[in-house]
Amino acid sequence: MESINIPAIVIGRLPLYLRTLQLMSIEGRLVTSSQELGERLGISAAQIRKDLSQFGEFGKQGTGYNIIFLTNQLQKILRVDHSWDIVVVGAGDVGHAIARYQGFANRGFRVVAVFDNDPEKIEQKIGDFTIQDINNLVPVIKETGVKIAMLSVPATHAQTVTDTLVKAGIRAILNYAPINLNVPPGVQIQYIDPVVHLQRMSFYLE
Amino acid sequence: MESINIPAIVIGRLPLYLRTLQLMSIEGRLVTSSQELGERLGISAAQIRKDLSQFGEFGKQGTGYNIIFLTNQLQKILRVDHSWDIVVVGAGDVGHAIARYQGFANRGFRVVAVFDNDPEKIEQKIGDFTIQDINNLVPVIKETGVKIAMLSVPATHAQTVTDTLVKAGIRAILNYAPINLNVPPGVQIQYIDPVVHLQRMSFYLE
Repeated sequence: MESINIPAIVIGRLPLYLRTLQLMSIEGRLVTSSQELGERLGISAAQIRKDLSQFGEFGKQGTGYNIIFLTNQLQKILRVDHSWDIVVVGAGDVGHAIARYQGFANRGFRVVAVFDNDPEKIEQKIGDFTIQDINNLVPVIKETGVKIAMLSVPATHAQTVTDTLVKAGIRAILNYAPINLNVPPGVQIQYIDPVVHLQRMSFYLE
Repeated sequence: MESINIPAIVIGRLPLYLRTLQLMSIEGRLVTSSQELGERLGISAAQIRKDLSQFGEFGKQGTGYNIIFLTNQLQKILRVDHSWDIVVVGAGDVGHAIARYQGFANRGFRVVAVFDNDPEKIEQKIGDFTIQDINNLVPVIKETGVKIAMLSVPATHAQTVTDTLVKAGIRAILNYAPINLNVPPGVQIQYIDPVVHLQRMSFYLE
């Protein structure tokens, strides 16, 4: 697959298709259509067909998509047909919520370790995890080969920690600190900042 | 301001400009440029100038932007020159993290109430908040006139709660449940699902 030729905006929609298909499976559904997916997602059926056609032929004209088959195909495309290990850096309230988050199950990810630099937090428990000293971060990443980190440290520390993560071998960072980060080419970065989303809505409020 | 004529994608970038300007102020900076903003954000300087020009003239050729002035203007445009009250529905781990989140300060929002339907959680404390019975949700929204909700209930309950929120007068919902929701025209909705972001990155990992 020539992933390099597929626009990031198309890749960005695939997880939404996958999530919707997985919910349909839970509902006991077997077959769906681009029309139905589109209605659930607020995306046109034509857009969905066009996006999926970049990766192959997944449905037949008139009979729709087999939900299990398309789910499996999307899991392969997004490389979540197996589970990725994740380290969480920063064990504040956000880090706690991430470490205990139930929504990773069956979606391709699992938290394997949580780190903090606060002596009062190190060795404390979050659910099944024992918070580890951030000084162990680099050796743990190198030893386990983990490629993905979720970052929930204060904005003032986020770039320094990011540099450390990248040097240790992390290749994808989901950043919860409210700051844009510099990463070298080949390292993926995504952001979650609830205030950015809230401000995108407040613009439209009277 | 004819907000209706400005593409949502432009509005979507304004919170990133505002966040970066506020960080620059914390750094003690007074003046910036579209070039510098662009470098921090990975957006072209031309794009930033074009976005801002939709709302007026904020900088002078060659002297750049006054950071405090542009911050104030963006706060007015995004309607966060005052603080919006927010209700949080769902007091699980995510709801806890939202209720205790320190990142709302000076960015235009504040949580005023937290609700849950679990008798074991109702009347419990989260920081300064006492978790309220979800049966009080509609009267509290109507009485206080709050317009924004953050939703952190299970996916199976999210649409029902959304319908209730909208009927009670909520006009903007930030949804943490991993499901797309239907809202009527005029109601804003935004989504935070960490797995969607992780899958957008795992596609590129080997």
